[in-house]
Amino acid sequence: MKVDKLAGERFKEKPSDCVVDSHALMIRGGYMKGVANGIYSSYMPLRRVTRKIENIIREEMDAIDGQEVQFPVVMPASLWSESGRYESIGSEMARFEDRNGTPMVLGMTHEEAAVHLVREYANSYTKYPFMIYQIQTKFRDEGRPRAGLIRVREFTMKDAYSFHTSQEDLERYYDVCYEAYNRIFARCGIPEVITVKSDSGMMGGSVSHEYMLLTAIGEDSIAICNECDYRANVEAAESIIENDCTGEDRPLELVHTPGIHTIEDICNYLNTPLEESCKAVIYQKNLTDEYVVVFIRGDLDVNETKLTNYLGEEIHPGEVTDSCGLYAGFTGPYRLDREKFTVVFDSSLKNTHNLSCGANKPEYHYKGLKISRDIGEVEYVDVAKIKEGGICPKCGKHTISVSRGIEVGNIFQLGTKYTKSMGMQYLDSEGELQYPIMGCYGIGVGRLAASVCEAHHDEYGPIWPMSIAPWQVELCCLRADDEECKALSDRLYEDMNAEKIEVIYDDRNIRPGFMFSDADLIGAPLRVIVSPRNMKDGICEITSRDKTLNTKISVDQVVDFIKKTIEEKLNECK
Amino acid sequence: MKVDKLAGERFKEKPSDCVVDSHALMIRGGYMKGVANGIYSSYMPLRRVTRKIENIIREEMDAIDGQEVQFPVVMPASLWSESGRYESIGSEMARFEDRNGTPMVLGMTHEEAAVHLVREYANSYTKYPFMIYQIQTKFRDEGRPRAGLIRVREFTMKDAYSFHTSQEDLERYYDVCYEAYNRIFARCGIPEVITVKSDSGMMGGSVSHEYMLLTAIGEDSIAICNECDYRANVEAAESIIENDCTGEDRPLELVHTPGIHTIEDICNYLNTPLEESCKAVIYQKNLTDEYVVVFIRGDLDVNETKLTNYLGEEIHPGEVTDSCGLYAGFTGPYRLDREKFTVVFDSSLKNTHNLSCGANKPEYHYKGLKISRDIGEVEYVDVAKIKEGGICPKCGKHTISVSRGIEVGNIFQLGTKYTKSMGMQYLDSEGELQYPIMGCYGIGVGRLAASVCEAHHDEYGPIWPMSIAPWQVELCCLRADDEECKALSDRLYEDMNAEKIEVIYDDRNIRPGFMFSDADLIGAPLRVIVSPRNMKDGICEITSRDKTLNTKISVDQVVDFIKKTIEEKLNECK
Repeated sequence: MKVDKLAGERFKEKPSDCVVDSHALMIRGGYMKGVANGIYSSYMPLRRVTRKIENIIREEMDAIDGQEVQFPVVMPASLWSESGRYESIGSEMARFEDRNGTPMVLGMTHEEAAVHLVREYANSYTKYPFMIYQIQTKFRDEGRPRAGLIRVREFTMKDAYSFHTSQEDLERYYDVCYEAYNRIFARCGIPEVITVKSDSGMMGGSVSHEYMLLTAIGEDSIAICNECDYRANVEAAESIIENDCTGEDRPLELVHTPGIHTIEDICNYLNTPLEESCKAVIYQKNLTDEYVVVFIRGDLDVNETKLTNYLGEEIHPGEVTDSCGLYAGFTGPYRLDREKFTVVFDSSLKNTHNLSCGANKPEYHYKGLKISRDIGEVEYVDVAKIKEGGICPKCGKHTISVSRGIEVGNIFQLGTKYTKSMGMQYLDSEGELQYPIMGCYGIGVGRLAASVCEAHHDEYGPIWPMSIAPWQVELCCLRADDEECKALSDRLYEDMNAEKIEVIYDDRNIRPGFMFSDADLIGAPLRVIVSPRNMKDGICEITSRDKTLNTKISVDQVVDFIKKTIEEKLNECK
Repeated sequence: MKVDKLAGERFKEKPSDCVVDSHALMIRGGYMKGVANGIYSSYMPLRRVTRKIENIIREEMDAIDGQEVQFPVVMPASLWSESGRYESIGSEMARFEDRNGTPMVLGMTHEEAAVHLVREYANSYTKYPFMIYQIQTKFRDEGRPRAGLIRVREFTMKDAYSFHTSQEDLERYYDVCYEAYNRIFARCGIPEVITVKSDSGMMGGSVSHEYMLLTAIGEDSIAICNECDYRANVEAAESIIENDCTGEDRPLELVHTPGIHTIEDICNYLNTPLEESCKAVIYQKNLTDEYVVVFIRGDLDVNETKLTNYLGEEIHPGEVTDSCGLYAGFTGPYRLDREKFTVVFDSSLKNTHNLSCGANKPEYHYKGLKISRDIGEVEYVDVAKIKEGGICPKCGKHTISVSRGIEVGNIFQLGTKYTKSMGMQYLDSEGELQYPIMGCYGIGVGRLAASVCEAHHDEYGPIWPMSIAPWQVELCCLRADDEECKALSDRLYEDMNAEKIEVIYDDRNIRPGFMFSDADLIGAPLRVIVSPRNMKDGICEITSRDKTLNTKISVDQVVDFIKKTIEEKLNECK
């Protein structure tokens, strides 16, 4: 391929709407173009990167006995009604009616389609275990697409579904897949990806892991223990709080607190630490608008994912109206009508005393609250967000740090959620009907490409690993107007093509600086530079995009040297 | 891969809803499963076939300087409004609103997306020519999906778009693509595909060709000259009719024809040939319901595609009401109100006389009509369907035969329809703004797979060409319960895998007949049969699915023999 005819514009200026580097470089480098919010077309360089990623994924899925299948993008709503998700998933699922008025959906994930495909086939225990996967376009109508390919609405995903006759067998295969994922990320050039325990969200199931590339621009927060191997998405991490209430219990006392609305203000006013306060956080249930009041230690925040899971339904921040019976800024647990509101006590309030809190009337707070004495027995639930410096749920030390990460893959133990709801059964060896147990395993191809770019770039462009680079080599003819220079370049281009080296050739009659900045954006790992000056010495200059290589090689040796170096660099990615 | 764990059911009975063989065999062979009307999931064997087809297409598109890109499945309606197709395309385009209420469409073709991708980039004549293509899922809400993968609603398509600065350059590239298509079909095992001139339909543009696999189950009718190389879709074929009106002109005469409604009946009643009649065919315009009356020689049929193209709007068969001013069965051109109805005279009526026709009042016909004498000068338009035995528009002989075919690909010269409507321009070498000229080139991957199956199958299953077979070899262990037989089979399986031979292995403990009928459905071109009886002689039996090969090979030679045979068979597909 010649740069001269490569469709796509390359330019220097960072587009103003790009907040992350991979997004800016992929726009600047002619990798993609926005078609609508969160929807992109890919030019050739990106398509080559994603195809290589797809092939790596395919090889690793095939190696663990995956069967490549294909599910439809457009599915009848009735299929999603079987599992109950047609109703339970909200506006992120695109819906339309076909010409006959039949309700249809666009696939955002394919558990239903997977069960549909195999539920008659896998009717006997002898058919198990097996795994099917596809690499296919998905559409998820994200509310806030952002960061280029990191969070989009339309994306290509590898999604795999395994079926088992026992939890043990699922766990065995889950581990196999866990290792395959590690190989995939290593082969794509980001072996530093870590796994974290995650929340299963709308997928259902219990055990699940996310594969995270740690980076400041990540959307997820990850709790990592600095002492042990504990790692979890903050959304899933258990919050452990130790309270000390050995001192004297003070009495409950009403305090007039005019103009004081926040828990920080009341603690300042009373000159007590935040840890000795009981904060109220108010939500409403999405379906009924019923109020949910969460009480939590004043220095902590509510983890809405854990709260949603506990409640079993979706919530949104509550709007406190004049007539609702709650007073914004003055809500507290003492004498709050627990029949009228869903009240949740976070575990951080266990074993506390002398708390300040709202008094459920305007301009008043209490101090000296002791829940067990003043309110009685309550159920404590963990709905707090783990914090920097918090207690590790595994080793128990105060060694949690919180980092940002991009989720590049996930694996879930789904259990029987889909097989039960969709009536998939098999006869076990005793002749009894059973529901198979499922696992599912996803990787977003475009997001993975962007993540590799995040991990490997400089200000001039992406530094692609050899395994997924759009081209392995860029050949630069520095003086296309010099007949000999052009002739040698043309010959090297032909020779490299003949050797099946993936080469992009720049023979435009432009300034070297311009040529090199384009090459930086294309990001081929190796560069062969042909110039009249070097030709006098019978050599070409060979450099690497990551600046670890800069050498001069005799013209006749160039192709062999390149072949050998490509081989080496491909092996590095294994 | 082992048959034992291959997801998908295989069975003997032809499903009652399958009217074509490829559909029945693909359902019976565990290739696919219906998810909704015209929407299928693919099991592994079909996915392997389509992936191989995709790779062949990709190689041939890359070889003619195609740049693989990717457009979205979901596009904003605004993009389609630019070209005017958001309005002009009907219910076959799926539409929905996203969560923000923005109208979106599902791509059924990607001309708009192609222009969108390159319209800023290709702003100078130096960037031309170039071609971009993708292999992507499309959705077209067909009114009548049928015949399995032959006509579906969701399908994978390779669509390519080329951009040029002159009609000559488009034609040059069109020819290049024409040859690439021939190579693709040959490599997929159906070199017998022919090209025919076609109607451009909703794509716009003028010159276009379809690639047709001739088969009785095809949906298209193709006019083929038995003397010269003329071939055209009947929808596009010019109809040439020669009339002889040398005899005596008879006078126009009203005839009472009670109970006679069809042109056949009136000709019988008058004892005149059908060629001496003027038939009326009544349509209505879709938008306005205005009546269109087509007069055509009584022995011919209207070609609705040509009529639509002439009128420039969509039509449907007319419903003749009591008040509409037309009389079903008695409509004729004499004294018909040509202000009130759109009246079209087909060229077959040129140079005729002594015609019988309706009299525009119930129970009456005329005989002796001569249009030029009785009606005056009229414009004649070719809207007739070419017939078996008709005149070849190229060589002029009565040598047309009409065959059925499946359209497996198409190529269009689009002209500037999309670049003009979407404002894509470039500066030519004189510094003048010009609109680029486009070509577009499509192949449906699933339909191609089904077409190959139509062309190559027997009653027992598909006979896949080596180039696109799901597996190259099926290894049959006839006695899995015989330790030695199983051990040898296992070793051959490992050895073939090590040699990267694509092998599907049946080591189930089942009857040979059952194993072979499954193997027939899977359709691997070669079969290696391991049995205790042959093992006594130190041999394996090797057969081919197409029954041209049936030999016994020494056990130690099996893998080499298979490798060599695969190589030979792959070469046959080139």
